[in-house]
Formats: sequence, structure tokens, C-alpha cells
Amino acid sequence: MRKLLLFTALSALGLTSAYAQAEAAGPETLDAFKATPEYAKFMIDNLWILISAALVFIMHLGFASVEAGMCQRKNTVNIMFKNVFIVCIGAVGYMLWGFNAMYPGDAWSAADIFALGSPISKGFASDADQVANLTNAYADYTYWSDFIFQAMFAATAATIVSGAVAERVKLTSFMIYATILVTFLYPVTGSWEWGAGWLDDKDFADFAGSSLVHAFGGFAALAAVIVLGPRKGKFTKDGIKPILPSNLPLANIGVFLLFLGWFGFNGGSVLSADAAGVSFVFVTTAMAGFTGGLGAIATSWIVLKKPDLSMALNGMLAGLVGITAGADTIPPYAALAVGAIAGVIVVLSVTFFDKIKIDDPVGAISVHGVCGIWGTLCVAIFGTTEGVTFGVQLLGTLSISAFAFVTSFAVFYAIKLIMGVRVDEQEEHEGLDVAEHGSPAYNDSTP
Amino acid sequence: MRKLLLFTALSALGLTSAYAQAEAAGPETLDAFKATPEYAKFMIDNLWILISAALVFIMHLGFASVEAGMCQRKNTVNIMFKNVFIVCIGAVGYMLWGFNAMYPGDAWSAADIFALGSPISKGFASDADQVANLTNAYADYTYWSDFIFQAMFAATAATIVSGAVAERVKLTSFMIYATILVTFLYPVTGSWEWGAGWLDDKDFADFAGSSLVHAFGGFAALAAVIVLGPRKGKFTKDGIKPILPSNLPLANIGVFLLFLGWFGFNGGSVLSADAAGVSFVFVTTAMAGFTGGLGAIATSWIVLKKPDLSMALNGMLAGLVGITAGADTIPPYAALAVGAIAGVIVVLSVTFFDKIKIDDPVGAISVHGVCGIWGTLCVAIFGTTEGVTFGVQLLGTLSISAFAFVTSFAVFYAIKLIMGVRVDEQEEHEGLDVAEHGSPAYNDSTP
Amino acid sequence: MRKLLLFTALSALGLTSAYAQAEAAGPETLDAFKATPEYAKFMIDNLWILISAALVFIMHLGFASVEAGMCQRKNTVNIMFKNVFIVCIGAVGYMLWGFNAMYPGDAWSAADIFALGSPISKGFASDADQVANLTNAYADYTYWSDFIFQAMFAATAATIVSGAVAERVKLTSFMIYATILVTFLYPVTGSWEWGAGWLDDKDFADFAGSSLVHAFGGFAALAAVIVLGPRKGKFTKDGIKPILPSNLPLANIGVFLLFLGWFGFNGGSVLSADAAGVSFVFVTTAMAGFTGGLGAIATSWIVLKKPDLSMALNGMLAGLVGITAGADTIPPYAALAVGAIAGVIVVLSVTFFDKIKIDDPVGAISVHGVCGIWGTLCVAIFGTTEGVTFGVQLLGTLSISAFAFVTSFAVFYAIKLIMGVRVDEQEEHEGLDVAEHGSPAYNDSTP
Repeated sequence: MRKLLLFTALSALGLTSAYAQAEAAGPETLDAFKATPEYAKFMIDNLWILISAALVFIMHLGFASVEAGMCQRKNTVNIMFKNVFIVCIGAVGYMLWGFNAMYPGDAWSAADIFALGSPISKGFASDADQVANLTNAYADYTYWSDFIFQAMFAATAATIVSGAVAERVKLTSFMIYATILVTFLYPVTGSWEWGAGWLDDKDFADFAGSSLVHAFGGFAALAAVIVLGPRKGKFTKDGIKPILPSNLPLANIGVFLLFLGWFGFNGGSVLSADAAGVSFVFVTTAMAGFTGGLGAIATSWIVLKKPDLSMALNGMLAGLVGITAGADTIPPYAALAVGAIAGVIVVLSVTFFDKIKIDDPVGAISVHGVCGIWGTLCVAIFGTTEGVTFGVQLLGTLSISAFAFVTSFAVFYAIKLIMGVRVDEQEEHEGLDVAEHGSPAYNDSTP
Repeated sequence: MRKLLLFTALSALGLTSAYAQAEAAGPETLDAFKATPEYAKFMIDNLWILISAALVFIMHLGFASVEAGMCQRKNTVNIMFKNVFIVCIGAVGYMLWGFNAMYPGDAWSAADIFALGSPISKGFASDADQVANLTNAYADYTYWSDFIFQAMFAATAATIVSGAVAERVKLTSFMIYATILVTFLYPVTGSWEWGAGWLDDKDFADFAGSSLVHAFGGFAALAAVIVLGPRKGKFTKDGIKPILPSNLPLANIGVFLLFLGWFGFNGGSVLSADAAGVSFVFVTTAMAGFTGGLGAIATSWIVLKKPDLSMALNGMLAGLVGITAGADTIPPYAALAVGAIAGVIVVLSVTFFDKIKIDDPVGAISVHGVCGIWGTLCVAIFGTTEGVTFGVQLLGTLSISAFAFVTSFAVFYAIKLIMGVRVDEQEEHEGLDVAEHGSPAYNDSTP
Repeated sequence: MRKLLLFTALSALGLTSAYAQAEAAGPETLDAFKATPEYAKFMIDNLWILISAALVFIMHLGFASVEAGMCQRKNTVNIMFKNVFIVCIGAVGYMLWGFNAMYPGDAWSAADIFALGSPISKGFASDADQVANLTNAYADYTYWSDFIFQAMFAATAATIVSGAVAERVKLTSFMIYATILVTFLYPVTGSWEWGAGWLDDKDFADFAGSSLVHAFGGFAALAAVIVLGPRKGKFTKDGIKPILPSNLPLANIGVFLLFLGWFGFNGGSVLSADAAGVSFVFVTTAMAGFTGGLGAIATSWIVLKKPDLSMALNGMLAGLVGITAGADTIPPYAALAVGAIAGVIVVLSVTFFDKIKIDDPVGAISVHGVCGIWGTLCVAIFGTTEGVTFGVQLLGTLSISAFAFVTSFAVFYAIKLIMGVRVDEQEEHEGLDVAEHGSPAYNDSTP
């Protein structure tokens, strides 16, 4: 939908046609287009998408740092290894399959519901092919910018799961699972909305992915955690045993880098450098993140009776997840409310999942899953877009979350049957770093 | 002043009028404006302000990391919690009060001296309101960009104080103090210059805030430290006991992120993407930061007889603070001198404050306060702007520093009388992390 | 060559002449140019070079963090101190000598082979001088942008060496060596290609410096390591003793920041914000980095029998170094191969250098040196540029590597004769932090 809207907008301004014409006519005419004032706008739109891709890239360092900081020292190498693998395989899988499965154009296998993937633009034979690949008739950025921005998004879904299954998941099993999730499953729900599928047909609104990215990842994580079971020693007969985070400065670095990356995640989802659009999104995004932090600080102080840093950090993330679906349409004062309520929700949700013995070491299910749903509903509650209804928002976010939960459960359960998904008790006790990687994360011995 | 200058410049180019016209006429005409070549310039100017806002945002991670790295391990959670709170409350307070207090336009309470604040642009009822809020007739970026860039700046003032009072300040007292400082006090001196107040009338020059941000924060910090007193065990009968930094790689990360953010702090203060302007500011800013590092390395090697990493890092920051007032007018070779001298000053100043028993764990008073004054004077010493005089620069920086010192002292002292500002000796000894937050920052126990 | 190509391209579009005209005529006409649509393109090109400079700047934090994380805890302060010094002195030296030595224009001392350096644009006397300095008739960005972008590049060469000589090099000796390397030696080979020297005459292609930056640094490092010798206790009678990394989360931060910075390193080397050009470079750069990670993961799993995080991280860097020479011409699918093979090479190369008792604590010689050569050859193997031949690529990369090796050896050996290059055994055992800097990096003692 995002692209279609843009196409319409551009057509209205007479930009698309000039560009499409230029492109259709081949390189020479492309040079002619480059000499027009319209090309300056194209350049800046395109550059902003690329800078946004770089900002989303750094979110992967954010995720790795949050997860490593929140978990135990003995599993740190394992966590970072998983994250390096996910971003690498995620982008490659997206290039070879996911991008075309998510944006099928007219090539649906089942109309508006499912499309097969394929490698991006195969032809590199002729100059005309090159031009076609380098440019993009349907938007104000190149085909390559489109791909790399979306590729950086794709891997985040699997990374969300990584945090929830940390400290006891078997490495090879997780690598297989994550590859399937990001390459084959994420693009399906993506196509429903951003690929102009059935949810887009119903005027479902999810600007930058409260549902399509975050709730997807959060509910995939929930399924994986149910299949996997809690860490040994977390839920004992004597109650819940807190497992302390190993490195909160590292978690702090991670959260602030995620916040920074969100300016590209949401800001780049404007899909242009439109002055009013990007400015508005920056304000709603940042302010919701800030009130998310305040909401979680206040709530955790009341509920947990102490000023809790982990909750404050998760609160900022919760606010950001919450505003992601409506960052383009929810007015700034409403964004304050969206974030603050997300900050309240995340504290209650983390406490709730602990109570029902769902062990999620970093709170990923609450931050991304629960607040992803909250954010999607907020577009109807606080947003100003005509045609958006609470019913469709609810239908959409539940459909996406259900799809993520069911397929994640099926895949992870199948892997469990075939090869197991959990390290043995001795390894878990020792820590995965030494057991699986033969190397501790920190070596302190100084003569 | 910055905005007025810009307005004049834009008018000269015939841009403002076109834009103002477009805006006055409502959305349809705005679309017409968007189809003009002038809009491409508006887009890029606006985008640069937004990217700068993101860069200034990451300075908050820089501040938190420097402070946590330079202080003791046992107070790390407390430090990061304070920093998360400050950036959250700072931005919200700026939205609800500070922005309009700092840029009053014609709405002064006492002409050119003081203005009451209010929430930013209240009306969201009509389309025309939306357009008015999304655009900005007086500058080449939107109202939202203006706000979010300035909001990111605002919280830095309180963050500077955070470092100086670390390791013994009472959390709730500091939270109240920081909220007042950033929301109500910082905008007052801000209005004197950037809000076109009395210092602007006198042709005072402070490009990006050597005085308005850094000296303000540094002298507010000095007052708070005097009210608070030194850490237990720092100044003993047997002399000054060094309290070692807990994590220098973390401090190193912090300083480099601050340096990175400074490209937005100073570069964004050009208030456009003007090619000559931003390029010039990048060069002067970076080179002063580099010679600041070299100046501090040399000085500390001579004075302290060793190559001191903390001083090298603080030297880079000192150089950056030093160039901030004149990054737009001080020629590049002079910028080398501005930075190098700031690097010398900061080492001597840190040593001096230690001697007079002002306990500033991170050197914030020296880096931001003393070098902030130095930088402001440099505009007259090395700058090339007509109308700038040493006398007015001195008057301005002293006025701002004095206002910060006096009001900070009054507020912090009042809080001391009402509820105390210091943790008890047992808590200070134990560390604030466990005592106030119930959670250590690092947990190393590995089976 | 990069600039000349651009000049041609711009002339074709009629941009350069407009700008050159405007500039020749002085400030008034410059204002007139600013009112033309062409100026919007100039603004965005220029801004992208500046943002790229900021991205390359943050690579210095990346290098410091990788090096500190991969080495022993007891040498961490020393490593960070070296890195702070290098970036500071590197930029200052480049301003005072290197820039003009690398881009001599017509001022060669020996035609196309060697030019003396000098301070950048001396004149600041008149308005016309200012304009001349602020603008740049030969490219679509200002003189200042050109300088600061290249200055950020320059220091990376010495930083590469820093990693290889870590943990036993004498601080003052290294400081002298690094200053000479970055100021006087790096610009020589730089001038051969980017300064339009003899390699450029032969149609050698090295887009962003697989050879000119990375192989240069890697082979300078090899020479320095040979002069210096291995760390005590690394190669014993009983075989190779692994020296464990002290802080892998820090190394992880470093590698991801380097990856982020590479978007500016390669992306900015387009020397404009050309939409097709920068998009293409982002895709090839990122994808090669990702397959580099996958290649190293697979290879190290087979060769070392474990999923090795250090190798995965070095694999991403190897892929990035590999694509750097041809990021603008190697098609995206070929970029997958370039990166994957670099990932294989780096694991084998690290193992090889260990076997021949070349002790390189961070693998800099393999990542930058060996993969730098690989990347340079890839332009001929996978690239599509007319005139590029395998023979010239081989000649070029070997010439540059040989020059780096020989001059680095000579300078470091001379320093060894004069003042020694190695700390004494007792200091090495104790760690350089306490011995040379009087301060450990981490202080954990908590009451």
C-alpha cells in the first residue's frame, strides 16, 4: 500500500511519469532526466532511504547488545554469534527469495495471500537491464535502495525471537529455524499488507510494522518459547528465581542504538524525504519512545517498588514499537499517550508472562508482541486516517500474530522432533559459550 | 538570531516568500510549492536538521557511557537510569513548556529577558492547522524539525550536571532538580540569544552553544557540587585519593559517540544544508576536537608524567566544546589553536578543581564550564564576524554562567532543605546500584 | 581518477561549468548560482560527502573497540590511547601535509610518482580567497568536504597497523611510526591512483581502497610485526598458545560500527549522491559483508571444528575489504561471491600466519592485507569496467603492498635502532596499561 499511495502522490505531482518516461527510453534519456530539477528530489529521496537502511542495520548491533547485556555472562558469545548469523543469512535469503515473495506485484500464487519468491532482478546482460535494475519506475528511489532497506528490516523479525529463546536453545537448530522464519515466513504476512495483499485491500494500516515486524517476531517468539521450555532454575518450587543481567551498560548501548535506528526504521518508511512526512514521523517516534520510558519507570516503581533500569529501557522500546504502526498519522500529543501506555503495558506484560511461566530472558514477547498489537490498534484509536477501523486493525494484527505463532510453532516443533532444540542440562549449566563455542566472552585473568 | 539571519538570507534568495505564500494559501498551494525546484532545497535542509537531531540524540548514549565508564562500578545502574530519565523528561518538558519559552517570538513576559512557556502548537482541528504545524514560514525546515532538533539539545544541559554529581546524589532529588533545570531554567538563557533576546540585541555570538548549552551545564554543575559536597574518601587528611574509573572502554565509546554527535550538534546549527556552511563547520569542529586531544595528551604527559587516556578523551571533548561557539566563523587554522588550548585548559582545570576540593567525577565542570567560556571568548579572539567584541562575549558568557550557577544553587539548595540531596553514608559505600535500584550493573558469577 | 571522471560526467550535464563560472566571478555570482536548481544537487552531493566523513570517523571507534576486545585486558588502555592519538595526529598531519601530497594536481615533484605535501589552501586574506576555499571547481562538493572526508580515511591506515603490533609495542615508538606512516607514506601510494598518478594512467581500478587503504595498512603491519616479533608466550616449544580475547561484546560493537562506517567509506567514494551509484554501492558493500560472515562461519566450523565468533566477525570485515575496490562495478550476485571467498580466505590466512609464527593479535594482516589484494583482483575477475585487466590490477596491488611493506619496515627498523620498539619483558607480562599508563582499564573492586 505504501508504494501505491506514493505512486498516486507522485503522479499527482507529475514526477513519476517524467521518471518512468526517462527510464523506459534507456540510459540516454536517463541522463536527460538527471539534468531536470525533478532529479534533485529523486536523489534526496533515494539518499534518505539508503541512510535509513544504514540506521536499520545498526539496530542489529542494538539487538545483539541488549540481548547479551540482559542475559548471563556465560552465554554471551552464543548470543552474538546468533545475531551475526541472522543478519547475514537474513539479507542473503531476502535477496534470493524473500523480496520477491513479499512484493509479488502481479505474480501471486494465491491471489493477495501467498506468492513464491525468487532472486531479485535476474538480468544483468544488457545496458537496458542494468538501467532497469538501478532505477525504479514505481517509487522515488532506486530498485537497489528499495531492496537493501527492506532487507535490513527482514532480519529483525528473527532477531526478536533470538532474545526470547536465549540461554538454552541449540545453536544449529536455531540457525535452521531462523533461516526459515526470515526467508520464507516473514515475507508471507509482509505481502498481505506491504505487498498489496488482502489486508491492504481492507484498508488495514501498519505504517512501519508494529504488526508486520514486531508482533510477528513477538508471537513467533512466544511459540518458540513454549516449544523450548524455560531455563533450568528459573521457575522453582519456591517461586520465580530472578536470573540477573550480566552487563547493563551493554544493554543500555543496545537500547539507545535501537532508538537511533528507529529514526530510519520509521523515518525511512515514509519512503521519501518528504519534508512534512519525515519531520512528523521523527517527532511522533521520538516522543513515544520517551514517554514509553517514563511510563515504564513510573509503573515499575509502583509495581516492583524500585526504579528499575531494565524496565526503563524496555519501556523506551515499548513506546517505539507502539508508535510504529501509526507514526505517520497519530498526532504528536496522542503519541505521548501511545508511548506512555505502552510503557505501562510492557511492565505488566513482563510480570504476567513470568507468572504463567513463559520464560523470556529479554522481554521480547512483551516489548514486540504485546506492544505490537497495542500499536496497531492505536492507529484506529488515535489516528486520523479515513477508512481505518478498529475492527480491521484488530483482524489484521491478530491474523499476522496468529500466522507467526502457528507457523513458528510448527517449524520449531518439527525441528525439535528431528534434531532437538535444546542443549543438554550440563551445557546449559556450564554456559553455551564454552560448551558450544569453546570460548568465553570475557577473559579477565591478568597476571 | 540564528533564525532571523536565515530569514534575511532566504528572503534575499526569494525562497521564503515563495514558501510563505504557498503556506498561507493552504494545502493545495503547498502541493504547488512542492512541484517547484525550491522545494528540493527545502527537503534537503529539512532532512539535514532531522539527521542532526538523530546525531544529537546519540550524544545522550555518549554522556551515559562516559559517565558510567569514568565512575565506580557500583554506581553504574544509577548513572544510566538518571540519563534515561533525563532524556525522556527533557524532551517532554521541552514539548510542553520549554520550546515556546526559549523561542517566544513576540510573546515575551519581560521584553528580551523572560517568557513563559506553553505546549507547542496547540491546534490540530483543521487541515490548515495541520499544514501550519507541519511547515514553518520563518526557516527552511518544518516546525516539527525545529522542535525535535532543539528538544534533543535541551536535555544535554541536565546531563552535564549528572556527571558532576554522580556517585552520591539522591535519585529522586536529582530527578526533580534535572526536570526543573531542563524545562524551566535552560530556556531562559536560551531565549536571551537564540530567542532573539537581550544578548542577541548586543550582537553576542554563540553559534551552537559553548555558553548556552555547555557553560550553562558546567556552572549549574559547579553549584550542585558545592551544595552536595565531595564523595566520601576523595579528599582525606593524607591528600587526594584517586577514585579509579570502572570501565575505560565504555568511556571511550562514550567520547567517540559524543564526537560523532557533535557533527549534528554543530553541523545542524547551520540550520540548513548550505554547502559552504556545513562543510566549514565540519572541518572546524573535527579539527578542534583532534587538537583538543593532542593538547591534553601533551599537557597531561608533562603535568601528570604519564600518557593519560582519560585526559586524552576529555581533551577531545574540550576541543569540541571550545569550537562550538565559533564553528561557523573561526578559520580552520585558528580552530587548531582553539582546540589545542582547550586541551591544555581542561587538564589544568581538572587539576585545579581537585586542589580546591570540588569533586567532579567526570570533569564536567572543566570540560563544559571552563572550556565553554573559553570557546565563547574565542569567537572574538579568532573569529571574523563584524560586530562581535571581546567585551560582549565576556558579558554574555558570564551572564549565562552566573544565571546557571545561581538558579541551580537555589533550586538544589531548596531541594536539600526539603528532602535532602545526598544518599546516606552506608548507601554511598555500598554503591547506589544495589542500595537504590536493587540490581548491580554487572553480574559475573559463572558456574 | 575519481575526480576526473566526475568532472567529465558533470561537464556532460552542464553542471560544472555553471558552478565554475559562478565561482570564478566571486561571492555575488555564487549567490546567483545558489538560486539555480543545480545548486540543490550540489547541496545534496556535498551533504552526502559530509555524512560519509562522519561515518568514516566512527570507524575509528570501531577499530579501537575491535582491537581492545580481541586483545588482553591488561593492554586495553594502551590500545585505546594509541587509537585516540592516531585519529588526532592523522587528521592534523593530513591537513598540514598529506592532502596536498596525495592530490598534487600539477605540482608533482617526480611526475605521477611523488609530490611534496603542504598545508591546505593557505590564503584566508580576502573574501575571494574564502570563497575559493569554501568551494571546489572540480567536483560537486566543497573543498572543505573533500578534505575532511579524505582526512578521516587517512588515519585508518595507521590504525590497521595498531592492531597487529598490539600488546608489546613501545608507545612512543609507535606514536612516531604512526605519524610518519599516515602523514608521509600513505599519501604517496594514494597519489599514484586517486591523485591521478602512474597507476591511474594505467587504468588501475581501486574504487574505495582495497589496496590504497587496506592492503597498504595490512602490509605495513606485516613489516612492523616482523621487526617487532611475537608476543612472549605465544609460540612455545609445545606449539601455539592461544591468547584469549578479553571482551568479545566490545569486539562485536567494533565490527558492527566498522560495517556501519563502510556505508560512508564506500558510499561516500561515489563522490556524489548519484542515485544509481550510491544505491548500487550500498547493495554490493552490504551483501559482500554478509557473505563474508557466512563464508568465515562455514570455513571456521570445518577447519577449527567450532562456530567461532571472532572468525565470523573477521569474516564480515574481510568481505567488506574484498568488495571495496569494486563496489561500484561488481554486480550484486558477484558481490556475494567476492565476500564469501574473502570469508574463506581470512580464516585460512589467519591460520597460515599463526603457523609461520607471525603474531597478529587481531588478524589485521589477513583481513586488510590479504583480502585487500583479493578485492583488488576481483575488479578484474568480476567487474565490468572496460580497460581493467588482471595484469594491471596485480601490478597495482603488489606495488602498493610492496611500497607499504618496504617503507614501513625501514621506518620501524630505524626507530628500533634509535630507541627500541618493544616494551621490556616485565612490562609486557604486567600489561602496558599499568606499566605505561599507570591505570588499568577496568576496576571491579566493589565493597
